[in-house]
Amino acid sequence: MEQQSGREPQAESKEFVKEITPQAVDYSQWYIDVITKTEMMDYAPVKGFMAIRPFGFAIWEKIQELLGGRIKETGHENAYFPLLIPQELLQKEAEHVQGFAPEVAWVTKGGSEVLAEPLVVRPTSEAIICDFYSRWIQSWRDLPVLINQWCNVVRWEKSTRPFLRTSEFLWQEGHTCHRTEEEAEEETLKMLGVYQDFLEKDMAIPVVAGRKSNREKFAGALRTYAVEALMSDGRALQAGTSHNLGQHFAKVFNITFMDQDDQLKYVWQTSWGASTRMIGALIMVHGDDRGLRLPPRMASIQAVIVPILSKKAREKVLEASRALAELLKGCLRLKLDDREEYSPGWKYNEWEMKGIPVRIELGPRDLEKNQAILVRRDTGVKEAVSLDDLPHRLPLMLEEIQQNMYRQALNFREANTRTGSDYSHFTEIMDNEKGFYVASWCGKDECELKAKNDTKATIRCIPFQTELKYKTCLICGEKAAETVYFARAY
Amino acid sequence: MEQQSGREPQAESKEFVKEITPQAVDYSQWYIDVITKTEMMDYAPVKGFMAIRPFGFAIWEKIQELLGGRIKETGHENAYFPLLIPQELLQKEAEHVQGFAPEVAWVTKGGSEVLAEPLVVRPTSEAIICDFYSRWIQSWRDLPVLINQWCNVVRWEKSTRPFLRTSEFLWQEGHTCHRTEEEAEEETLKMLGVYQDFLEKDMAIPVVAGRKSNREKFAGALRTYAVEALMSDGRALQAGTSHNLGQHFAKVFNITFMDQDDQLKYVWQTSWGASTRMIGALIMVHGDDRGLRLPPRMASIQAVIVPILSKKAREKVLEASRALAELLKGCLRLKLDDREEYSPGWKYNEWEMKGIPVRIELGPRDLEKNQAILVRRDTGVKEAVSLDDLPHRLPLMLEEIQQNMYRQALNFREANTRTGSDYSHFTEIMDNEKGFYVASWCGKDECELKAKNDTKATIRCIPFQTELKYKTCLICGEKAAETVYFARAY
Repeated sequence: MEQQSGREPQAESKEFVKEITPQAVDYSQWYIDVITKTEMMDYAPVKGFMAIRPFGFAIWEKIQELLGGRIKETGHENAYFPLLIPQELLQKEAEHVQGFAPEVAWVTKGGSEVLAEPLVVRPTSEAIICDFYSRWIQSWRDLPVLINQWCNVVRWEKSTRPFLRTSEFLWQEGHTCHRTEEEAEEETLKMLGVYQDFLEKDMAIPVVAGRKSNREKFAGALRTYAVEALMSDGRALQAGTSHNLGQHFAKVFNITFMDQDDQLKYVWQTSWGASTRMIGALIMVHGDDRGLRLPPRMASIQAVIVPILSKKAREKVLEASRALAELLKGCLRLKLDDREEYSPGWKYNEWEMKGIPVRIELGPRDLEKNQAILVRRDTGVKEAVSLDDLPHRLPLMLEEIQQNMYRQALNFREANTRTGSDYSHFTEIMDNEKGFYVASWCGKDECELKAKNDTKATIRCIPFQTELKYKTCLICGEKAAETVYFARAY
Repeated sequence: MEQQSGREPQAESKEFVKEITPQAVDYSQWYIDVITKTEMMDYAPVKGFMAIRPFGFAIWEKIQELLGGRIKETGHENAYFPLLIPQELLQKEAEHVQGFAPEVAWVTKGGSEVLAEPLVVRPTSEAIICDFYSRWIQSWRDLPVLINQWCNVVRWEKSTRPFLRTSEFLWQEGHTCHRTEEEAEEETLKMLGVYQDFLEKDMAIPVVAGRKSNREKFAGALRTYAVEALMSDGRALQAGTSHNLGQHFAKVFNITFMDQDDQLKYVWQTSWGASTRMIGALIMVHGDDRGLRLPPRMASIQAVIVPILSKKAREKVLEASRALAELLKGCLRLKLDDREEYSPGWKYNEWEMKGIPVRIELGPRDLEKNQAILVRRDTGVKEAVSLDDLPHRLPLMLEEIQQNMYRQALNFREANTRTGSDYSHFTEIMDNEKGFYVASWCGKDECELKAKNDTKATIRCIPFQTELKYKTCLICGEKAAETVYFARAY
């Protein structure tokens, strides 16, 4: 690939990039540098809260569009339920209140009046939604109920990290009711599949799907399933969960229906959610020392045109850049960066840091050759393309980048997934290299807890493949019951 | 128009419609009947709160799509700011806190800990956003800042009515910063125009745009503008507001920038919002005794196919209905209601009540004639159309309905807009027929207050046309300063 002349000197660009702490030096600081310097977020005056700035929120809007589209395609409708929940409702399901009460925010005063009963700011909406469902559902004709809501929730977290764990976050939560146990289980797994499909195809994040152990399941659920992704520091992140609630909530909230056989029955329920955490996953799976890398399908700007303006050819290049932007606007989401107060080199680095998949450089020499230089963010590779070919080449290149980013992430995960039956090997891996550790487990809480105390690693999920890796439990050496994925997790 | 034979008897349908209280009998009850029986909403366990059910929420999603699209087209980006605001921030702007403190919900406990400083659940976000802006804005290069957010807000209201005034509601709030006073005023008026355009073109709701009187302006604003619509009971409703905040907030939050002339200056700000109230306006402007009437652009279902199934021709009609649905799916938002457990008559009434713009009836006799019967919700007029012409005819009919509904609403408003300079005529109109009353006003708070005490009518807005209607104030008879619109309002 030819190095174009007439480009800016590199000194300025290096200055810019230096501001991001390298991953190898301090991964946590790298993460904070990326999200603050790209203006994805800012810290709120109240500890644990944050503002999502337009550049970060644009990713959330893509999630709403692409995951939300899949949620609608699978027959769900959106609705909105109240933010504030009477204490009494939260307390109905015993496990549920035990799980959430320690971390809720309480509204105790409205205007100048002290409330007779304090209200909970929703940490999740099962309780309030079940209260409505108990009135809305009467007959088998009313089933299934397939409702989703996009909203904010509050959980009073002690230790927070932007996007990954914040006291307020945005999410979608689906809440469904079904006639039969089988239908509910089918729905639970279908929605897990929706998360997996979205994460892998659009976010370019490979995930392991499976069931949660009892210790890790949702407070009040019969069974919890999750999709788990591996971050580039070797820690796992739960990117979406889907719960089969059984009839636990139906029984305490009295959600019944008259079935076709004239019997009054309790409904079978599911709930499932994914949140702004996914933005954290996107950053940590794909980011590098130069900043963010956005998979093309998630990028609100897929390519940026940077005109290289010499004094002589200024008008000509600007004009050609505008014509190019006009030509390409139907092919992809494009930005023309024609700001005069910044140099091309400065812009290269800003857009690299912001992870825009393709940079289109257009200078006087390029114009002479009727070409532009495309620079891929994922590989750094440059390619001279004739201006006439761009409308054809760019969409293909975006697809190549999307596939390549998924492959890179998958390769990383595979290289960082180990297996074994020797506990000291396991503890060593978890202490040093991290990653996933696939092992056999007897099924007992004590063994899971011992592994956590020794290594901070937890069982991330029990994958659907039933074949046992080893015959004995990694921890106690007794008869194994399941194959599990261990990892230290966010 | 020919009455088709082979239709269901009308008895069942009348039963159904009887459930809605006629407007003339009790307008408030009619409103409640419409929103509950169409399953737009349901009351929450906490007084003043509600759930927006899928059928109601679909209208909000259309508002987000169509108003949200206009907000983006005018250069604004979406973001998200924290739900909880430290008391101290709310108190910074004196008028602002005075306006909002009496109606906020207070979070005083997080988990098991009592908070050192209580937090306010946002009633509006000026205070928290200004806190961020004071850090984000440094230079003229950072301006303008054009940010919008879609979110929930809480105001502890004493007297509530679904959609119109609820303790929690959904809205969008735009918050912008500018270099100059002129730019801020231009932005304020531009966004008022965006509301007007959206309401008139998409919601088919004619509005009067103008400035608010001092008594009615936003707490903390320099000037407030609003668009006011007339409901079919003759009361006005404020459907959107746009505030020029001047430098009131910039000064107390210290939002400054270094200008091109190297002087440190305060920014000029605006904020503007529209909420789920607009759904209330949609219902009350267009609804009738049979239920809702949705303007086609706001309808998530624009036409519904109801097959008329006789025993003999059941399969044939069902098959033709499915083929028709397939044929039409690219032309409009369509639903095929092929439920077997309900009769066609029952379905006609359900979809009429839900305000779907066009019903497409397809029975055995229609099939013989290769036609379907289109029934308009706005006029009730029936039209036989050849199946081959439907893809052409339906989009045209939807546009006719959209225009007709706007015209009907405009005619109603014009017939219910009176003018005069005689105070007893004014009080009589406000007591009986209501509607808008255009009059001249001296500009004094006392006169506005007297009119309110005597008639419950307030100054809805001061329209932009400057010509004086009458030379003397309607109330005190002294020299008039402005032409104003009076009305009793929601």
